[in-house]
Amino acid sequence: MRLATIIHEGRRQAGRLAADGQHIELFDMPGDRGLLPLIEAAANGAALPAVVARVPLTQAKFDAPLPVPRRNLWCVGRNYHAHAKELVDSVFKDNAKTVDAWPIVFTKAPETVVGPGAQVILPTGISTQIDYEAEITIVIGRGGKNISRADALKHVFGYTIINDVTARDVQMRHAQWDLGKSFDTFCPMGPWVVTADELDGTDTRVRCWVTPAGGIAELRQDARTTDLIFDIPTLIETCSRGITLLPGDLIATGSPAGVGMGMKPPRWLGHGDTVRIEVDGLGVLENTFVQEATA
Amino acid sequence: MRLATIIHEGRRQAGRLAADGQHIELFDMPGDRGLLPLIEAAANGAALPAVVARVPLTQAKFDAPLPVPRRNLWCVGRNYHAHAKELVDSVFKDNAKTVDAWPIVFTKAPETVVGPGAQVILPTGISTQIDYEAEITIVIGRGGKNISRADALKHVFGYTIINDVTARDVQMRHAQWDLGKSFDTFCPMGPWVVTADELDGTDTRVRCWVTPAGGIAELRQDARTTDLIFDIPTLIETCSRGITLLPGDLIATGSPAGVGMGMKPPRWLGHGDTVRIEVDGLGVLENTFVQEATA
Repeated sequence: MRLATIIHEGRRQAGRLAADGQHIELFDMPGDRGLLPLIEAAANGAALPAVVARVPLTQAKFDAPLPVPRRNLWCVGRNYHAHAKELVDSVFKDNAKTVDAWPIVFTKAPETVVGPGAQVILPTGISTQIDYEAEITIVIGRGGKNISRADALKHVFGYTIINDVTARDVQMRHAQWDLGKSFDTFCPMGPWVVTADELDGTDTRVRCWVTPAGGIAELRQDARTTDLIFDIPTLIETCSRGITLLPGDLIATGSPAGVGMGMKPPRWLGHGDTVRIEVDGLGVLENTFVQEATA
Repeated sequence: MRLATIIHEGRRQAGRLAADGQHIELFDMPGDRGLLPLIEAAANGAALPAVVARVPLTQAKFDAPLPVPRRNLWCVGRNYHAHAKELVDSVFKDNAKTVDAWPIVFTKAPETVVGPGAQVILPTGISTQIDYEAEITIVIGRGGKNISRADALKHVFGYTIINDVTARDVQMRHAQWDLGKSFDTFCPMGPWVVTADELDGTDTRVRCWVTPAGGIAELRQDARTTDLIFDIPTLIETCSRGITLLPGDLIATGSPAGVGMGMKPPRWLGHGDTVRIEVDGLGVLENTFVQEATA
């Protein structure tokens, strides 16, 4: 099943892709937090809400499926072998010797989230090194603490895509990454949450194209999740050690090789650039970057 | 003014210390998120809600003033000169050379928060190196982005205390600190939010005693905020660069020297230990640590 949050009649509403593949069926539920109440109810065994309206897919304006997460997103760093290599002298230089020991986990503030097609704002005067990171993201269903690898997939509601937009200069200078990952609009998400019965993420292709302003699309990231250092069950086990995971929690699984910082010389995002992420089975997430106007 | 959240008649209710100093006056407002709606309303210029009941202070059971923050707490690492020195070979070893460049900022999940007197759970089988950190914590009032040092104090609603409980082994092994800071119950908070007109934090004494199970209290931390590396306006400026701060956001300002990890040999918290934090003008926050029962 494909679930989404759209803007319809001026407000957020949650729905699903209809069986005909041509409509969004809207649910009878409050939509301001997108799919969050549906995921919480499903975790308690509730059935899907009733359908109250149908919107043609061609007219649907997508928002992020979880536009206001309940707390910061959990995000994994250095989780593709090839990506670990490309940043061995920069982002991961202090961790290079222990690449296979434990995942790196940081967070992004909930207010970073924006939907497909939304503008990402390049913060003028604060960072000149903005980078993209295409990532498959786990959506937790049933919550729990100390979840074992063996049980982990029972706690997955589904999957979505995020672009873990990062200010590299800010990420580095504060030693801890949360600030450089948490600028307003720095987490495009969507377009769907695809439920776990349709995708397992064990061998899924992740691609990312950058189209420089006025230029042509360049394929920058192209990997399969078979290259993950820590697989999805391991990430759930790790994030739930001593920490109760909650329905609607998001765990971004890390980005493949091919980020701007890994290029020689590095290439940063600029005004008018577009980043398009496609994950097989999850759809396409595309956003344009615009320089913040100064006062 | 001293504001608090208490458990009264079986539910959370927000109130203030009465003029007589002997009662809590409860406000006519929903209490499940403690002071958060009051702070949000105040940021929009609203007056305090009406008082609907008075509870004798001696009968008040305190909860955390902000028991469910809207997103992860912002927390500052390495922010007292003396503390930076004591951990120069462990927590801060990769950052030692740039101690005065930029603050280290990480986060704690909102669900870590517990109130004064609540038990902190030592997570069995996950960490054997649990440590305390006494911290003055900024409560943001009016939100904003790119707040300058000069304007920063206009955005402070008040101050409270947190104990930034930390699993040192987990903090270190994941490179990023958020997991080791985010175990369930790892953020005792309270007892009051004291409004900014009563405290400015520029020269405030922070003390922390540990009473080992069956032992006597040992003064472990004793510092003044004059020893802060980055002062309160600088922290607000830093956390708001490109990131819109929100009413009710919390910024923990870092802990003084004297943590268990800094002792030779290190001394970790164990079952039955009590940690008591006193900050002049903010009150006392005391919590007992208990080992999690295993199944």
